[in-house]
Amino acid sequence: MSEFKMTTVEEMEAATARLLETGAKVGADAWQLRVKNQTPHCKFGEQGICCRICAMGPCRITPKAPRGICGCDAHGIVGRNYLKFTAAGAATHSDHGREICHTLYCTAEDGNYKVKDPDKLIRIAKEWGVETEGKDIYDLAHEMAEIGLMEYGKPFGIQRFLDRMPESQKKKLIDNELAPRAIDREVSSSLHMAHMGCSSLPEALVKQSLRCGLADGWGGSMMGTEFSDVLFGTPKPINTEANLGVMNADNVNIVVHGHDPSLSEMICEYADDPEMIAYAKEMGAKGITVSGVCCTSNEVAMRRGVPMAGNFLQQENVVLTGACEAIVVDVQCIFPALGPLSKCFHTKFVTTSPIAQMPDSEFIRFSAETAGENAKAIVKMAIENFKNRKPELVHIPDLKQKATVGYSVEAIVKVLDGVTNTQVDVTGTTKPLLECVTSGVIRGAVAMVGCNNPKIRPDYAHIELMKKLIANDIIVIASGCAAQAAAKAGLMDKAAKDICGAGLKRVCELADIPPVLHMGSCVDISRMMILASELSKDSGLEINQLPVVGCAPEWMSEKAVSIGNYVIATGIDTFLGVDPYVSGSSEMAALLTEGTRKWTGAAFTVETDIEKLVDLMIERIEEKRAALGI
Amino acid sequence: MSEFKMTTVEEMEAATARLLETGAKVGADAWQLRVKNQTPHCKFGEQGICCRICAMGPCRITPKAPRGICGCDAHGIVGRNYLKFTAAGAATHSDHGREICHTLYCTAEDGNYKVKDPDKLIRIAKEWGVETEGKDIYDLAHEMAEIGLMEYGKPFGIQRFLDRMPESQKKKLIDNELAPRAIDREVSSSLHMAHMGCSSLPEALVKQSLRCGLADGWGGSMMGTEFSDVLFGTPKPINTEANLGVMNADNVNIVVHGHDPSLSEMICEYADDPEMIAYAKEMGAKGITVSGVCCTSNEVAMRRGVPMAGNFLQQENVVLTGACEAIVVDVQCIFPALGPLSKCFHTKFVTTSPIAQMPDSEFIRFSAETAGENAKAIVKMAIENFKNRKPELVHIPDLKQKATVGYSVEAIVKVLDGVTNTQVDVTGTTKPLLECVTSGVIRGAVAMVGCNNPKIRPDYAHIELMKKLIANDIIVIASGCAAQAAAKAGLMDKAAKDICGAGLKRVCELADIPPVLHMGSCVDISRMMILASELSKDSGLEINQLPVVGCAPEWMSEKAVSIGNYVIATGIDTFLGVDPYVSGSSEMAALLTEGTRKWTGAAFTVETDIEKLVDLMIERIEEKRAALGI
Repeated sequence: MSEFKMTTVEEMEAATARLLETGAKVGADAWQLRVKNQTPHCKFGEQGICCRICAMGPCRITPKAPRGICGCDAHGIVGRNYLKFTAAGAATHSDHGREICHTLYCTAEDGNYKVKDPDKLIRIAKEWGVETEGKDIYDLAHEMAEIGLMEYGKPFGIQRFLDRMPESQKKKLIDNELAPRAIDREVSSSLHMAHMGCSSLPEALVKQSLRCGLADGWGGSMMGTEFSDVLFGTPKPINTEANLGVMNADNVNIVVHGHDPSLSEMICEYADDPEMIAYAKEMGAKGITVSGVCCTSNEVAMRRGVPMAGNFLQQENVVLTGACEAIVVDVQCIFPALGPLSKCFHTKFVTTSPIAQMPDSEFIRFSAETAGENAKAIVKMAIENFKNRKPELVHIPDLKQKATVGYSVEAIVKVLDGVTNTQVDVTGTTKPLLECVTSGVIRGAVAMVGCNNPKIRPDYAHIELMKKLIANDIIVIASGCAAQAAAKAGLMDKAAKDICGAGLKRVCELADIPPVLHMGSCVDISRMMILASELSKDSGLEINQLPVVGCAPEWMSEKAVSIGNYVIATGIDTFLGVDPYVSGSSEMAALLTEGTRKWTGAAFTVETDIEKLVDLMIERIEEKRAALGI
Repeated sequence: MSEFKMTTVEEMEAATARLLETGAKVGADAWQLRVKNQTPHCKFGEQGICCRICAMGPCRITPKAPRGICGCDAHGIVGRNYLKFTAAGAATHSDHGREICHTLYCTAEDGNYKVKDPDKLIRIAKEWGVETEGKDIYDLAHEMAEIGLMEYGKPFGIQRFLDRMPESQKKKLIDNELAPRAIDREVSSSLHMAHMGCSSLPEALVKQSLRCGLADGWGGSMMGTEFSDVLFGTPKPINTEANLGVMNADNVNIVVHGHDPSLSEMICEYADDPEMIAYAKEMGAKGITVSGVCCTSNEVAMRRGVPMAGNFLQQENVVLTGACEAIVVDVQCIFPALGPLSKCFHTKFVTTSPIAQMPDSEFIRFSAETAGENAKAIVKMAIENFKNRKPELVHIPDLKQKATVGYSVEAIVKVLDGVTNTQVDVTGTTKPLLECVTSGVIRGAVAMVGCNNPKIRPDYAHIELMKKLIANDIIVIASGCAAQAAAKAGLMDKAAKDICGAGLKRVCELADIPPVLHMGSCVDISRMMILASELSKDSGLEINQLPVVGCAPEWMSEKAVSIGNYVIATGIDTFLGVDPYVSGSSEMAALLTEGTRKWTGAAFTVETDIEKLVDLMIERIEEKRAALGI
């Protein structure tokens, strides 16, 4: 009998309920309450048939009013809204990559930021045709950073990283005018197409959505991932823990939240500083605990083993513990609610980016140039806030799970090399994994990504889907808040092999991996694209022939739709648990769930019933296997 | 007694009513009918307090639900929506400029596009520090086009054209972090800031709106204007006619509509071709009449004297005449309604840009590289369609007015030089105009811009405001659909001096100008910014001290909001007749109507009562005069 015990969603919900009691005591608001106030949602908005693109409106499509004032019909309105949604996501996600390029540009031998993985930098430089021989690594870093920044705005040409795609997929994109030009240009073009009096043809709007998404996934996000590795190290398997229980009542608790590792890496650096630890002790604490929420958490967990306090819908919970001295945020997915909530406790809500400025926060502007002093000031502020804690409000739920995280593509290949017979096999490829798939020991793989969304019982979809997939010998690769859901549940504990099917269990044992592999933050979905490309190249199959699908069962952000677009544009069928506001147009729905297939080889499936969703995925994987005769 | 007779709004409405009778006969839809179906509008949308930024919602703010699910309040939601609206407008407007840069890049001695104003190109090259000496003009054009394209995406630095601003205004922008970086980057940054979990602080959102708007006005739009002049000639006064009566029942009628002159210039070129005219005659017509709608019309009117059939809300009317063989469109402000409407007649609805693809249209893809053959094919298609006209449906309203158009800044300065005593005064400045203002002969100037919007009786606000302003000795400079409203009414006829105050009348006589000066299309609002800058430099006053204001009484598009942002960021108070969906937030309203003053020296006034709006403008101009002691 296995000793492995998962944490259930019910246990997590009970912990949350207890925290909400504290919240009620201090008059705190909570998303659970706001959801009640905000439901039912506006049906026009939900169906995507409300148009506020010009000031003649807003217009809403009804049977009696089938066209807006300009004459745009439901298909055009839904299509424009979808494209705008995508463009906003692509802009956001890729702007993260731009910040990383900028940080790379600021690296120096003796600076705040250094090149931690020079080999990776040199590898990318060679890919890009940049001379590396005899060049100082920091000169190379600056040169590469500038080239990277130019990918956002170069007047001619397509994204450099498309060369990493299997030739056939890249050709499909070029032939269908889907290959992305400069990243920001695709964003601007998208907004132009969706402007009043421009495109209303669904096909054109969907094509641009794909191209704009690709500019994110194969442009900004991929640079974000790759250069983060160069700066902070390429992740490799590392042990950590997940869920609120990682916070420590005796210590100064600093929670990092957001997405960009430039800030959180520095915070971690200074929280480890003996001087700071001594100062914390002086202030009555036993030490300093940094933990994370959302993708910032994924970043520092993967590279430093910093524990994960929780994912998106748990962000208020860290404050509700009463033991959070500072929640320090960078960009994206940060509840403005943290402002007023922190005022109900002693918690300092520290915003740091000009991109994410919020009321009721302390704004300490963070920049690559002044990163060290900024981080030190923040850590000190948190330490000095320890004394303001109200002991009667402190309650940290006793819930946490062990997790092994950090499965970059490089790490996965290395793990696979470990099970390769180096006498007869080539190393450094995905072939051992392909063999497992071909033989049927593993049936396929699912890339599980995305957020939480109150429309879905939080984490439930992630966890239930993963459980069923691994029980069916389908390996799961996870990123973002999906990864954290898995970690909190225990699915990233190597012991979770015990709830896998026999085949996957054997693979987990042999390779010494958990059945759900943590691949990073949401920009790191670009890692998944690279892995799929490698599998395609190593197998000689098209990406869309591989028994691999993507899934975002609880997504909520514009970024997620940008991601969805580039995943299907890469040739990977993608399953969504939340409708992207397109149900109001049969034409748009048909294009997205089938029509894109003729251009990219893949399409979306939208299914809000989670049970059906997982069955559809398994079915699709088995179909692909059958088509290959394996 | 003057013989000058304006066309009244009532007369225009009667003409429209007659056309709608034709429409009713053939079962055509019309915006007048769709407005009925779409009103009342959604109050949440109108107030800007509906949030669809993530898929947890949509959320709507009410007294019982003061925050969205993420915790964002009304101020954050309104602010984000406002920033997104601005960013979409800036992206759209500046993408027009990008197309022009691209056209400039495609110029050749023997190509479809040539450099028509080499002096202007050389002047701008010198401004930008580009060596011109001994360089082939086409080499210079290509070099300048590349530099222009780089303004969209350069990783470092701010917009080059900011150097044209008075030093003090530029300094204000730099000091307040409002100076725009690469154009597309400002668009992407805006979307990032407005993403779920990023900025919700109104001040930050408004500042970025200003910066993004500036990237349009002093970046993309200004390049659009300047390089259009280089390509197609800098406008100078030219006579034309305006209103539907310019269409000719005996001729093949081709209507150009949209914004980018690259297409329409070519269409005009081929419509003038003797071969094409002969072909038209062969097909039973007496000739070919090209007329325009919207800003494409402004472009070709200013440079070729091509008559203006009408403005934004008249676009369906040109089809309803039954005499339109082809309505040929490029980008922006094109009713998707033209698709189904054209099917009720013989009219070919020809879309030409990948940016604006619409159902029920014939898509003839137009590109700078193949412009000649594309244009020829379109003109031929129109000619061959003449025979399909249904005579019983033909009715062209007998309404038109004379207009003198083409008042670029260069043309205005030249006109002023004509009234300068060259013995004692410097020529080539705005000083004569300043003298008129200082002496009080002219009280000030209003830049009147923007669209039509059914929320305002079409053209009524434009015309009534202009009438009152010129009667009060305030000169009006107009662009876009505002300019066409003036032209249709007769206010661009030099004879309109007779309805001016005595001072302005004297100036019109002396300088031989109409009291409302046509300055071009909506991208040409950048000309207004240059004129204001010149006035500031020539007077030694700050821009916001000049008795000059901007006004968009009937605006409707995202572009218009981008424009509004850069106009106030340039230091010019701006008066709007339609609320930009911000009434739901007192903080946002306060920032936009007063708060921006501390950063830029100017702010918005929103007044939907047109009578009050004009009085407020006159009051503001007189306040500024009083402050100067003039």
